Order: sequence, then C-alpha cells, then structure tokens
Amino acid sequence: MKYPKRVAALLERAKADVGDEVQVTVEDETYQGIVMPHHSFSEKDVLTIKLANGYNVGLRVTPETPLKRVAKGRERSVPRRKVAANPDKPNVSFLGTGGTIASYVDYRTGAVYPALSAEELASYAPDLADICNVQARVLFSLLSEDMGGKNWRRLAQEAAKDLNRGAKAVVVPHGTDTLGYTAAALSFMLTDLTGPVVLVGSQRSSDRPSSDAFLNLMCAAHLSSADLGEVVAVMHEETSDLTCTVHRGTKVRKMHSSRRDAFRTLNEDPLGRVHRDGEVTWHGGHRPRAEGPVKVDNKMEERVALLHVYPDLPPDLFDAWAERSRGIVLAGTGLGHVRKPLVTRIRKAIRDGVSVVMTTQCLNGRVGLYVYSRGRELARAGVIPGEDMLPETALVKLMWVLGHTTEPSEVRGLMVSNLAGEINPKLRLEESKPD
Amino acid sequence: MKYPKRVAALLERAKADVGDEVQVTVEDETYQGIVMPHHSFSEKDVLTIKLANGYNVGLRVTPETPLKRVAKGRERSVPRRKVAANPDKPNVSFLGTGGTIASYVDYRTGAVYPALSAEELASYAPDLADICNVQARVLFSLLSEDMGGKNWRRLAQEAAKDLNRGAKAVVVPHGTDTLGYTAAALSFMLTDLTGPVVLVGSQRSSDRPSSDAFLNLMCAAHLSSADLGEVVAVMHEETSDLTCTVHRGTKVRKMHSSRRDAFRTLNEDPLGRVHRDGEVTWHGGHRPRAEGPVKVDNKMEERVALLHVYPDLPPDLFDAWAERSRGIVLAGTGLGHVRKPLVTRIRKAIRDGVSVVMTTQCLNGRVGLYVYSRGRELARAGVIPGEDMLPETALVKLMWVLGHTTEPSEVRGLMVSNLAGEINPKLRLEESKPD
Repeated sequence: MKYPKRVAALLERAKADVGDEVQVTVEDETYQGIVMPHHSFSEKDVLTIKLANGYNVGLRVTPETPLKRVAKGRERSVPRRKVAANPDKPNVSFLGTGGTIASYVDYRTGAVYPALSAEELASYAPDLADICNVQARVLFSLLSEDMGGKNWRRLAQEAAKDLNRGAKAVVVPHGTDTLGYTAAALSFMLTDLTGPVVLVGSQRSSDRPSSDAFLNLMCAAHLSSADLGEVVAVMHEETSDLTCTVHRGTKVRKMHSSRRDAFRTLNEDPLGRVHRDGEVTWHGGHRPRAEGPVKVDNKMEERVALLHVYPDLPPDLFDAWAERSRGIVLAGTGLGHVRKPLVTRIRKAIRDGVSVVMTTQCLNGRVGLYVYSRGRELARAGVIPGEDMLPETALVKLMWVLGHTTEPSEVRGLMVSNLAGEINPKLRLEESKPD
Repeated sequence: MKYPKRVAALLERAKADVGDEVQVTVEDETYQGIVMPHHSFSEKDVLTIKLANGYNVGLRVTPETPLKRVAKGRERSVPRRKVAANPDKPNVSFLGTGGTIASYVDYRTGAVYPALSAEELASYAPDLADICNVQARVLFSLLSEDMGGKNWRRLAQEAAKDLNRGAKAVVVPHGTDTLGYTAAALSFMLTDLTGPVVLVGSQRSSDRPSSDAFLNLMCAAHLSSADLGEVVAVMHEETSDLTCTVHRGTKVRKMHSSRRDAFRTLNEDPLGRVHRDGEVTWHGGHRPRAEGPVKVDNKMEERVALLHVYPDLPPDLFDAWAERSRGIVLAGTGLGHVRKPLVTRIRKAIRDGVSVVMTTQCLNGRVGLYVYSRGRELARAGVIPGEDMLPETALVKLMWVLGHTTEPSEVRGLMVSNLAGEINPKLRLEESKPD
C-alpha cells in the first residue's frame, strides 16, 4: 500500500522508495533500516522500517523529520543469506504450515509470501542464526482455519522424524486461529519426546511495526536449549516486546481475536516464560526431554463433533449431529448441563454407540456431574465427564481415543485419564474459598 | 446430610441438633446462630451455622471447642417474618425463577426449597428488609438450563409491569448457568427503564458456609437506590465477601464453572461496583433511569441457532442447521473465520433467506472480516459482522431482530447497530499497541 501524503513527501524528498535502506532521526534517536510498505492498519503519519535484526519499528514523522537514503533497494539483492551450519549450535527444524507468522515480505513490492526455504526464513529473521542452525521446510501453505486432522497427522510424523534425526527442537510456525487445536492434536499423537515441539504464531503480519512474529520466533528457537519434552505453544506474554509465555499444548486457547497476547493457559499456570535474551524461567511441572526415540501414534476418528449448547437448542438438531458422529463433545452450561429435552436424546445416542463427553462453555473450571440433579441424570445416561479439559482439547482427544478403541469402558477410561497434561488433577471443583 | 464424627460428638454433648440455635467459641470469637445441615462439599470438621443476618459461617471445631445450645429448633417457629412496608424505603420486586439463589433452607430437615413468598425471602435474608420493602413472587421454579425464550418473554412483561407500578428496582434471582442469556434477552426486550432490572445468582447454595447468595442479593437490592435504568447482572467481584460487580446485561458471561466470582464483563469495563455497605461506585457509561413508562417488546423468532466452528466441521452438519433455522450465529475462529468448504454452504444458506452473523470464539476482541481473505469471502457471501458481541448475546439479539423483520438489509442494519450496549464502539479491532 502507498504511504499517505506526509510520509510520501518525506520519502520523495530523500529519493527513497519502499525497499530502500534509509536513516531516520526521530526524537533524537537515529534508526537505519529498510522502508516497509504502508499497511492499512498503520496510522497515516507513521513510517515503518525493518531494522537489521528483523524487528520493525513504526516512526511517527513530521514534515521536518531528518531522513536520508543509504542504499537503493534495487541495488540490494533479494535477501537470501546462505548460512553455514555451526556444529556448536543446536539444529532446529522449522516446519512451515502457512499463516501470518511464516510469511516473507518482498521488500520491493510489499507482497507477502510464505517463506519456502531455510535461507528465506533466515533472512526474514536473521537473528535466528545466532541461536541455532535453521533447517526449514514447508509442509503446507494453509490459512490455519483450513488445517485439520489430515494436517495434524502429517505434522506429527514429520516432527517425530526430525527429532529422531537429531533436531534439538521442532518449531511449527502456524496460523493463530486453530493453533490451539493443532497443539492439542500433536500432544496426543507424540510420546517420548526428545525435545520440544513448539507451535508459534503471530497476530500481526511481519510487515507491520507492531508485528509479534520476530519475538515469538526467537523465543520458540530459544527453547532448543531447554530441557523440555512436550508440545507447547509460544506466544507474546504481554503487549510489550519483552517476554513470551510457554503454554502446554493441551491447555492453551486463543482468547482474543487481535491482541498480540491473545493466547492463554486455562485451568493451570503456564509452563514458563522465555525472555527476549533467551533466558527461560520455568513455573514447575513441565516434562523434561525423554530418551527417545520419539513415537508417533496418529490414528484418529474424524467423525467427532463439538457442540456448544444454548437455551432452546432444538433436540432434533442434536439428533442430526448424533446421526453423523461416532463421538460428540458437548460444551454444556455451568458444571456441565443441558436443557431437559436433550437428556433423552443424549441417552439414546449413547445407546446407539455414540461416545458423549461433557465439558463446560465457561472454559474455566471443571465439570461436576454430581452436584445438581441434571448432571446426575446425564451421568446416569452415560455421559463421560470431561474434567477440566478445554472443549477444543476434549474434541481432539476424543478423535484420537476413538481412533484406537470404540469399546465404551475403554473410551471412558482414556477420556478421564490424564494422557498429555490435558487434565489438571490439582484443580478442585471449587478451588476458591472451599468450605 | 449428617455431620461426621467429631462435629456430631460435639453437638451430641451439647444436646444440640440441626435447626437448634447454638453458641460456639472458635479462636476467641463467639458465634451465635442456627446449626445448618452438613453439606457434601464441606470439610469434615467444619460446623456450619447461620448467623442472625443470614450469612453462614463455617467453623473448624476441635473436640474441645466450647459449644452450647441456646434454643431448641423445635421451639422456634418456622422462620416467617411478617414485615410491614416502610414508606421511607424503596419497593423492590423480586421475581423468582428458580436456581440456587432463590432457595430456602428448611432448618429442621436441611432440605432446600424455592422461596415462594416475600415472607420466606425475608426470613431467608432478613437484612433485605433494612434496605427495601420486599415484594416477592415466584414466576417459575426452573433450573436455569431449562430457561428459554418463553420464560424471557414472561419475565420482560412482569418486570415492566412492576416498574410501571412504582417498584424502584426489579431483582430476578436466577440460576447462574444461563443468567447471561436471560440478561441479554431482557436488555433487548425492555426500553425506557425507570429503574434497574437486576439478574442475581449464586454459585454456592445457601446452606453452605461459602454461600454467595446473601451478599449478591443484598448488593442487588442496594441498586434500588441507584440512578440506573438498564438490565444488569450483579455477582461477587472476587472470592472475598466484600463487593459485587455490576455487569451490563449484554456484556456479561459466566467464565468459570464453580468460582463465586465466575461472572465477567467482556470487551468493556464493568459498569460499577456495589460495596457490602450499600455504597455504589460507577465506572462511567451506565444508563440513568428513564422517565418511562417502561416499554416491552418481546417478540422473538425462536428458530435461531448458535454454532461454534472447529477444524473439519462437516459442511453437511452446517446444512442440517441451516435447513432448520431462520438465523444462525457462527462463533468463528480468530477474527471470524471458517474453513473453506463451509463458505459455499454459508453463501447458499444466505441466498435461501437465512441470516448469518459472525462472532468470535475467542470471546474477547472484535470480528474483522476485512483483514484476511477468508473474512472477505464471507463478507461477500453476505455474512453480517457481529462486531464485538458475545456469541450468546448475538444469538439472543438475532432472535429478537428476526422477530421484527426478515428483510435482509433491515436485519443487517439492526445487527450492526448498538441497541442495548451490546456493541462497544470504542473497542478498536486492535486496541493494544496500535501501529
């Protein structure tokens, strides 16, 4: 996008264009970097430049702001750095899936493309090479809302393969929309992890001053030196650019549509924090690296549905779902309730062989089927309590469980067992001010 | 439930029984009140007594705890206080719907019954009479998961009638599970409110030491003296017994299955706070009392569905819903996305006359259909942006809107207009660290 008048005039005077390298002085501080294209979200008097370390800054300019061109973009080669592997650094496998995070900005046109090679990723975030040997390949190039079971299965296979070949970590740049679902799926599919599998996303595209892509990627890469053997998500902790949070893959949920600190660990403390300088602080409870080899078990039943109930939900809509599903996760109200007319339909579905699991649409807290009469009716009908699992995690888990057994007592046994940190046994039904 | 051994022995020595009035000294403090039945959630060495003001306390006893009987329960009459109306106090109408909050404990048996009259409510929370003239009647006696459109319509009528007859506030004790849905429905149905309509619930039943029923009821009643003319929910602010939060009816959501401070205002600040002593602090933005008379417009289309999308949601499940519905609210991923195969089905449903509104399953933040390509496809297909509305509020609003018009441009116009505080125009798509 073209810059509005004030910034455009400033650039024109300096004979500088998008893609050129410039020096700008704002509030007594001088910045040098590549002029990025204007973004529709940026304010009109803000010039965005990409610094040498990959971070973008947005600079509010006046007609008098000193700005000079240092190098023409056309004279710069398309940024591709061939980086030799350093045997002292950990090898990290980057598995591209698409999404804002993995994209690569063509400085000459401003167009955003997925990074397709290690070289492109390295030039996109050059500081990554200080942390690790980047080994990148692109598995998919999908909007995350289009990721599904097929992609989870492939990702699990590739992540295991790379860890078993010696990668110290697998980093999966991923669109944020369904990052939590994928993280949960990989958590159930992978065991004996010799290193972390790190889902990482970005809420603001990399051509914007407020992009969170760099810090998130750097923090993800830093986990290659940590003693961590589980699937996690790493995202901005706050709105500032200082720390990222390490979330357990089965407990993380996108809780804001647009903030950079959108991701939250629910029903337990996050596993830890990665500081911008690479220091990792653990809050306790994370799983260390296993001896390996990493095992993949990615069988899944895809005919599993997630249904949030609401007042007046027509029973025949539930029936329509039950007919098409081998399993249904309900997000009930409160402790795990549904309206009366649904109880008989649920009972019938269970008799017909559908596994029904109850979670809470409150998201926080456990279900409790023995507190009120409606819960007891549901328990008697054969509904499996989802404990404190997120509805989304329970969905993915039920898909995985039904891929392995359809025997009701085994399904129940697995659903109420803590397989991958998805259930917090320390969370009491009433953790606040118990009687 | 019977008390376990230690408490039972102490009571037996004092010849005291459930329902008797006792004096107990614990940690140099002496308490006098009625012995409540043991509750399955209570710890085994905790004795629960109900103080004169209606609050319960749980006292941890030892075999040496001084405890004496003051009066036999059988000698006390069933607690019914006839309270004369005081012309200096505001009249407050309590409309019972059922749920934990409205229940009345029979001290002799420990059984929990709904409070059926003003007298019962007054004896259940005697301090209410210090605040207002209690005028109570029971409309329904339902678990809140069984409340629906029919009940909302009746409640709206009764609330309007009572305010138009001079009540300074209408307080609606309600089960917590669907309290938010009912609050939203009343918000759209009632206009020109001459006083507040206050939904109030309790997360812990009134026979438990940790019950939140009393503080919540008292705080709700205190709003009868406030200059407030909208539908609100009043619930514990924290886990302590000091303050309640006043939530706007269209912005409130139950965000925890069991905590006393389960309710949260999303996407704006709560309207205010009621202190235990009755003082009300406003955070700005609440609507004052209107001149009236209160108007009711409770027409609704009930064939409206709420559907949370997830990876691999089968398109034919969407079709099954579309066939049965006049309107569908989607809770999409992120800024309001769905997987690709759903787009054509959504387009078809819209062509067939179904109104489709997009909200976000992140719950926090706005939808933004013009940021990514999938959003633009949906916008072109005719999907109506739900702005920053809660999915539940958008459901109730669409029911209400479709009760008044099915003309697509009118439906759209109403859905994107802020009718009852359900849209926060100040919330930017990216309110944190804008570029």
